[in-house]
Amino acid sequence: MDALPVIGIDVGGTKTLAAVVNRRGEVAEDITHPTDVSSQDALLAGLDKIVDDLREGRGIAALGFGVPSRVDQRSGRAVASVNIPLADVDFRDRMRERHGLPVGIENDANAATIGEWHAGAARGAQNVVMLTLGTGVGGGLILDGRPFRGTTGVGAELGHVVIGLDGPPCSCGGHGHLESYAAGPVADRAARELYGEGSGGRDLVERGSKGEPEAVEALAAIGRALGAGIASFVNVFEPEIVVIGGGFGTAGELLLGPAREVLAREGLEPARDTVRIMEAELGSYAGVIGAGMIAFEALDAE
Amino acid sequence: MDALPVIGIDVGGTKTLAAVVNRRGEVAEDITHPTDVSSQDALLAGLDKIVDDLREGRGIAALGFGVPSRVDQRSGRAVASVNIPLADVDFRDRMRERHGLPVGIENDANAATIGEWHAGAARGAQNVVMLTLGTGVGGGLILDGRPFRGTTGVGAELGHVVIGLDGPPCSCGGHGHLESYAAGPVADRAARELYGEGSGGRDLVERGSKGEPEAVEALAAIGRALGAGIASFVNVFEPEIVVIGGGFGTAGELLLGPAREVLAREGLEPARDTVRIMEAELGSYAGVIGAGMIAFEALDAE
Repeated sequence: MDALPVIGIDVGGTKTLAAVVNRRGEVAEDITHPTDVSSQDALLAGLDKIVDDLREGRGIAALGFGVPSRVDQRSGRAVASVNIPLADVDFRDRMRERHGLPVGIENDANAATIGEWHAGAARGAQNVVMLTLGTGVGGGLILDGRPFRGTTGVGAELGHVVIGLDGPPCSCGGHGHLESYAAGPVADRAARELYGEGSGGRDLVERGSKGEPEAVEALAAIGRALGAGIASFVNVFEPEIVVIGGGFGTAGELLLGPAREVLAREGLEPARDTVRIMEAELGSYAGVIGAGMIAFEALDAE
Repeated sequence: MDALPVIGIDVGGTKTLAAVVNRRGEVAEDITHPTDVSSQDALLAGLDKIVDDLREGRGIAALGFGVPSRVDQRSGRAVASVNIPLADVDFRDRMRERHGLPVGIENDANAATIGEWHAGAARGAQNVVMLTLGTGVGGGLILDGRPFRGTTGVGAELGHVVIGLDGPPCSCGGHGHLESYAAGPVADRAARELYGEGSGGRDLVERGSKGEPEAVEALAAIGRALGAGIASFVNVFEPEIVVIGGGFGTAGELLLGPAREVLAREGLEPARDTVRIMEAELGSYAGVIGAGMIAFEALDAE
């Protein structure tokens, strides 16, 4: 079985990316489908069809799923989800029975982290912090050379550390969380204030890239908050690398430059000087490659 | 060798506690000496004498040291210290040569965490966050059933997460770190403001225990900041238990009550509901018992 590839499936709120992946994290074939979010049954049936299509005429050793969900790793249960109708499902058991293969399941931010660690920016590192800046701020951790998931699997919610006491409301109901300062919607709001309704974070990044001072400063303010979060994680984990991914993470140095300045001020020696802050390398493939690695993990655990 | 006990030594800025400890974390005999901080040579000679005295007439399998220092675990080097003259020393090698025994060395906050995990409040847990509230805020982590130390050993500086953007200055040069809101000196300052020069955190806790409203509220404000830090760690680690120790940690529920209220608001489900927030059990013995466990770790690695 060892030479056979696996299928990794990254389930998003609008589309699902699935790929045939080998142990080195190389993608042989991949397909993208709209995610059917009309119901849980429709969602699961859609995933079954994707797997069946990719398996056709090919030996597959295991399946790995990255889902925008709270996952209980003890049972393989998807407890609750963001943007997709998946809740209180014995996902791992259901998929194992339906497809007759070992199945791994993982929160999507954790999957992206595992992908960047196996095949992207964090290759070879023992301690990795990953932040994905999108609609929210997702996080993942590799600690002492292993993915860290918390006691039942809901760990590494790095977007929900408090960086501003009594700060702005967070999507989770909290206040002053990293997500409420550094997620994509913060850039959208800044863009609307500067350029009127209809503008968004994409405009802000585009104008910032051209050097427009207002846009540069708006992104720098977000970058400084991001830097406070990064400094916190650097002080806690002394990681070799912090990887910044996600759609809004592509703002790159417009965020990371100011973030590094704050890290220099708030980080402890020697960790602040030895850590590398890098952009993710795998882009939208991080999750699906990570899901593939989770499939191999499930295979090896059989 | 396996039945022999070890010696754990907890080196503090004013006194050093050393104890003969067995594998279960039980203390057979302990001694306390003033720490000689007149010079590095005097400090090391004082530690040698403590070890020699405790070894006399008894079989000892290994030595473990908890030091208020930044420790490079790759080399066993004490890189820099707080309150004691110990810097740029090959501590582990030096002690191993001098005493002819396996030697472990660990930052004191990590040692206290390991002590509480083996023999105190966090017994049997797989994921533990410990915060020690004293002159500063120290931290330690047990993750997936193992002490977590970061890439070179300087990890788990939990007192230096940013919880207040552009907040008050921290002893480390940063701003708005947990330590700058929740360490003992913050209580000292509040006491002086309320009761005049000469008052301190001890008075504040004493008055708070009697229910004096001003003292209760001053401690509650510190507790709420502590709660923001705890919520951050709960969201990141999904730990089974958060242990609060250190001299100022004995303020107990005066801090922990308000901290729990903030955790309920800022923590994510299910972690915020499943985690237990507890006071340390071993008091001033946590560090020396942890140092003993580090000695066994060094012995087992030989």
